[in-house]
Amino acid sequence: MPELRKDPVTGRWVIISTRRRKRPNDFRIERSTALGGDYCPFCPGHEELTPSEVLAFRNGSAPNGPGWDLRVVPNKFPALQVEGTLDREGEGLFDRMNGIGAHEVIIENPDHAKTLASMTEPEIERILWAFRERILDLKRDRRFRYILVFKNHGAAAGASLEHSHSQLIALPIVPDFVREELDGAKQHFAAKERCVFCDIVRQEIAADRRIIQEDADVVAISPYAPRFPFETWILPRRHGARYEDAPRNEYEGLARMLKSVLARMNRTLESPAYNLIIHSSPFTEETTDYYHWHVELMPKLTRTAGFEWGTGFYINPTSPEEATEVLRNARL
Amino acid sequence: MPELRKDPVTGRWVIISTRRRKRPNDFRIERSTALGGDYCPFCPGHEELTPSEVLAFRNGSAPNGPGWDLRVVPNKFPALQVEGTLDREGEGLFDRMNGIGAHEVIIENPDHAKTLASMTEPEIERILWAFRERILDLKRDRRFRYILVFKNHGAAAGASLEHSHSQLIALPIVPDFVREELDGAKQHFAAKERCVFCDIVRQEIAADRRIIQEDADVVAISPYAPRFPFETWILPRRHGARYEDAPRNEYEGLARMLKSVLARMNRTLESPAYNLIIHSSPFTEETTDYYHWHVELMPKLTRTAGFEWGTGFYINPTSPEEATEVLRNARL
Repeated sequence: MPELRKDPVTGRWVIISTRRRKRPNDFRIERSTALGGDYCPFCPGHEELTPSEVLAFRNGSAPNGPGWDLRVVPNKFPALQVEGTLDREGEGLFDRMNGIGAHEVIIENPDHAKTLASMTEPEIERILWAFRERILDLKRDRRFRYILVFKNHGAAAGASLEHSHSQLIALPIVPDFVREELDGAKQHFAAKERCVFCDIVRQEIAADRRIIQEDADVVAISPYAPRFPFETWILPRRHGARYEDAPRNEYEGLARMLKSVLARMNRTLESPAYNLIIHSSPFTEETTDYYHWHVELMPKLTRTAGFEWGTGFYINPTSPEEATEVLRNARL
Repeated sequence: MPELRKDPVTGRWVIISTRRRKRPNDFRIERSTALGGDYCPFCPGHEELTPSEVLAFRNGSAPNGPGWDLRVVPNKFPALQVEGTLDREGEGLFDRMNGIGAHEVIIENPDHAKTLASMTEPEIERILWAFRERILDLKRDRRFRYILVFKNHGAAAGASLEHSHSQLIALPIVPDFVREELDGAKQHFAAKERCVFCDIVRQEIAADRRIIQEDADVVAISPYAPRFPFETWILPRRHGARYEDAPRNEYEGLARMLKSVLARMNRTLESPAYNLIIHSSPFTEETTDYYHWHVELMPKLTRTAGFEWGTGFYINPTSPEEATEVLRNARL
């Protein structure tokens, strides 16, 4: 059973999940080369290599066989376990609970060769709808407080399989980085009666130095204080705390924007590996006024080293103004 | 001029330091293979390839030439700049200050082939004394609030040069991770009138499940909630907030313990790349009662991916109890 453990000094939680190691003595788990099409468990015809699907977009074909546009399956090596109760307990200074949660894989497209950047806008939109459906289903489970949707693209970003996929993890706690955003946004709202993200979008559009691209529904910006070179945030213009409550036009806008921003990165940064995450409101808190869901996209161009692990702050060799200029001027 | 910028939502600071890039259009800065001995700027006889030394242990030889046991030089590609004033300023929602700070390199040994694990105990102790001397010197500069001493060993841990070295960065702000430790330790002290780190050492010694090695002065433990497999903390038994005020026997004990723990890791984890950091009290705060300096050692066995960047919490595939057993039983 995986465990959630809390550091007694900082209050930071970690997941101890030994089942993620394939062999008991294999402590070195840098992933090897991504699997090609012949052995790919995500390709059509190999459905028996994944756990049974929890969601699929199909045109009448039978579950767990070929003939799908998108599939969602439980992760075969889940970091958390769906069955069981939380069993919170203390041990002297220490606090732990069972590692209860859901860990699912969204197989984005039947075509092994397609990437998010090379898919059509409707294909990308389909993925965004699948995220929504899974969130709406999982949030009914009262043990969960948060769902993180994320994507690792490329081995350098931690992807162990080449076939384009995203993941989601439903958690019994609200993670630290989300908590920091919630706290900051709440304070801002308390002081000013405005959403800090709305304020950022407004100020960035007025200043026009860090706007990569904007359209009617969403805006892609280089944040003022990015941790990583070419870190990019995509925010809906309209205020809204929850990804799963967004109107249809925002999914359309986000799909279009993702495709465009990834094309810009591929063109200027030699098709980098990247991590993508969606930050949305926890289920169990009333955040409607002050939180604003968004996407964070982090191409993997640098390595995190001792300084970052020791301080929690980041040395970024590329200014967001410079990154904006490069991405804005990319020939598409 | 490098800049410190603050994220308006989370309050997280980043350093924007474009001079760290060697060429203006080189956005991809994954480091290539480490330089070998012939071209190594840290080898004796190549002193002209580094900035002038700020400290050296020499037996009468002239500065900036060969004949040294250890040298400290400014980093040739510093993340922060020593000259100037902080010039704190706001820009609407945003806060910034000049990237003032010191960034130095400790060239630990004249021998290119030696690593911390293969040096003698007196050689390691010499490095620990150099850290102390540089901290005592730099803390007189009133612009600085914190000094992080850290070491990246191996390319996977972010080292760009093979020749064994450590670094230190003096900062005008107290970094987030240190702030979290300070806040947690302060709360614990307020509630219990005891240091949380002293409590941890006491509980761990009593439980004896996560003690890798102990001696009269220092204890090496696998922390209860480690972020990374085989993460190891080395703590002095005696309570003390500041590394630079430690008594001589603690440096001796730490040198011996570092050598031993690194030998255990090399034996069991195939000589991993690692990051090492020293957490000590900020200069400008009275933390004597509740903070406790220590070393954190993080072998680089896994990759940080989207989940970690999205949540700030960590999936660790090796329990600290298992790591302790492996390291404790290593044949030395």
